[in-house]
Amino acid sequence: MLIKGFQASAVIANMRYKDRFDLGLIVADALVSWAGVFTTSNCCAAPVIWSRARALQGRGRAFLVNAGQANAQTGTVGAEHCVQSAQALAKLLGFQPEEVMLASTGIIGQFINWEAMEKSLPHLTTTLRPDALDDFSQAILTTDTKPKTATCQLDLDGTTVNIWGCVKGSGMIAPQMATMLGFILTDADLPPELLASILKEGADLSFNRATIDGDTSTNDSVLMMASGASGAPTLTEGPLLEKFKEAAFSVMLDLARQLVRDGEGATKLVTVAVKGAATLAEAQKAARTVAESPLVKTAFFGEDANWGRICMAIGRSGASFDPYAVDIDLDDVPWIRKGVDNNQEEAASAVMKKPEYTISIDLKAGSYEWAMLTCDFSHDYVTINGSYRS
Amino acid sequence: MLIKGFQASAVIANMRYKDRFDLGLIVADALVSWAGVFTTSNCCAAPVIWSRARALQGRGRAFLVNAGQANAQTGTVGAEHCVQSAQALAKLLGFQPEEVMLASTGIIGQFINWEAMEKSLPHLTTTLRPDALDDFSQAILTTDTKPKTATCQLDLDGTTVNIWGCVKGSGMIAPQMATMLGFILTDADLPPELLASILKEGADLSFNRATIDGDTSTNDSVLMMASGASGAPTLTEGPLLEKFKEAAFSVMLDLARQLVRDGEGATKLVTVAVKGAATLAEAQKAARTVAESPLVKTAFFGEDANWGRICMAIGRSGASFDPYAVDIDLDDVPWIRKGVDNNQEEAASAVMKKPEYTISIDLKAGSYEWAMLTCDFSHDYVTINGSYRS
Repeated sequence: MLIKGFQASAVIANMRYKDRFDLGLIVADALVSWAGVFTTSNCCAAPVIWSRARALQGRGRAFLVNAGQANAQTGTVGAEHCVQSAQALAKLLGFQPEEVMLASTGIIGQFINWEAMEKSLPHLTTTLRPDALDDFSQAILTTDTKPKTATCQLDLDGTTVNIWGCVKGSGMIAPQMATMLGFILTDADLPPELLASILKEGADLSFNRATIDGDTSTNDSVLMMASGASGAPTLTEGPLLEKFKEAAFSVMLDLARQLVRDGEGATKLVTVAVKGAATLAEAQKAARTVAESPLVKTAFFGEDANWGRICMAIGRSGASFDPYAVDIDLDDVPWIRKGVDNNQEEAASAVMKKPEYTISIDLKAGSYEWAMLTCDFSHDYVTINGSYRS
Repeated sequence: MLIKGFQASAVIANMRYKDRFDLGLIVADALVSWAGVFTTSNCCAAPVIWSRARALQGRGRAFLVNAGQANAQTGTVGAEHCVQSAQALAKLLGFQPEEVMLASTGIIGQFINWEAMEKSLPHLTTTLRPDALDDFSQAILTTDTKPKTATCQLDLDGTTVNIWGCVKGSGMIAPQMATMLGFILTDADLPPELLASILKEGADLSFNRATIDGDTSTNDSVLMMASGASGAPTLTEGPLLEKFKEAAFSVMLDLARQLVRDGEGATKLVTVAVKGAATLAEAQKAARTVAESPLVKTAFFGEDANWGRICMAIGRSGASFDPYAVDIDLDDVPWIRKGVDNNQEEAASAVMKKPEYTISIDLKAGSYEWAMLTCDFSHDYVTINGSYRS
């Protein structure tokens, strides 16, 4: 797919991986609106510190991302590597270092392989093409089993607008190869503040609802640019903006679902939907506790219709409710009624054999709701994450 | 071991398991001080509701426990089963139903097999013996691989006092077979309020520091009785009380360590000790987040000295600290200094091959500390918990 106003490239930089793209670049043809959302970790990586400051400027030109080293817990050396790489790239492309946002994914505590990166930057900048977004989406992968992209095309007042996104990460954090990274492009025209609020709202509705293991990376970043090159009117408010937001959110949710489906060792994609909570915070706590419970997730893996574990998880979540008012559905199976078994063993077991299903929990304590996307905990998760950093 | 003033028994009740003790009883020779600490789950089991009320009375006579059915999320039927079992036992032993505390462990949502229990109670009460505590410790097991008991003998002003405890549970919750249960007896003499405060303090220092998977059972209970039959002076304050507390705490910590060592699929016992936190709550959050992180725990299993995951976990824990001030030791190996790698790969890898070790994290942000006991996440954890409830 082409997104007007952007070019991309990817190279085999041999920074850590061999014989695969591991350094990617996206460049806007001109200064464009951009935005970013980042990890809340107190131990955030050097590129997160760099890019968080850059995002606040509202406008910029390029995303540079490497896979292999996370550049987290790397001190002043790591911060210096950020400055060096932004400077080198900006010099090659003829703009300012501050017009580059950086992202890294890989092993925490390891320095960027600066020698390999520096050597590859000229080739990276001279091979930029409008149709190389797929290459870029491959350069950001670590333990992912496949690239994950999503697109959407919409008509804004007679003009076609495109949205493209790609994501990496086999969890909110993938293992030694830490991190969820996301990159979203559009040729719609939006002012920076609006772009930032759409990205924030969209991330809350998508990526922040996804969990593989409950662990949060030092490097998580979702970066977005809007070129305005489609020629569609500048979005500020009203039905056109709503239409764009809906499309952008659908791209982000699609990416979030792909992320969880490709979770480390995952064999199931499960939506945990809580409603009837007394507060939004309690809906979130209940959904997250179920979605992250190792006992619930191993039951998903074992295809075990063990509803007691769902009750255990909501019971310890901190949400307030009457345990004998709760209804739980498994897809359309009325699994639990008023907190006790509804004798649906056979039907419930059949649903749990499916690759994707939804657990709907009605706490009957209020009107707030929240949903999380999660996967199962499998033998492969342990194998992938128990293995040495090699 | 004998604890003066108590008798115990266990029977094969065939409530769920076959050919093994699954119903256990401890009876005091007279009305004695007792106390209990219970799960904080909002979905707590019927026996927890029953026993929590009984514990407040301060005095009682007996503990009755079954393995196989948790009697949680069982509604009015489950509550009725508690009344029936306490009444039946009290009638056989000639005291009041309110003088019985109950505990259950097993599958959530399943009713007590009342027919089997009722049939077994007469035999259980007529086979009480002072030397049957070991039988009792076997009757409470579910996925545990072995019984777990601890004892301590101390001299109080020339009189020998004994403390005995047993515990079950392969985690704060074991799988379908939910629950950590603990039972502690002493022939020391203590007023009920003091016994309650010692049990609470001891549980916070021991069981509440242990985590297998971060999941909290609907049935967790630790129950304690003090017969006073040793003849030692009544404990109220001063050095004798301190001596007793120290002994009681050591029994509870011993049991907590056995619990984690026997965690489902566990191959490692790891102490996560955080110091230098700005507040006690932050010390606890940091230690708990490391101890419960699936990525940290799979690295323990893989014997992978991947310190980046420790930083990831403290970084997301919510504790405030300077990431470039932190020191981390692995036993006596100076692993991380000022937040960065200290080139101890070989020494650190050697420690991680040991069955037991300590990770000491100094946040350098204050003077508060907290430690947690945890284990690794292994293939066997997934196997045990992914299997069907059979």
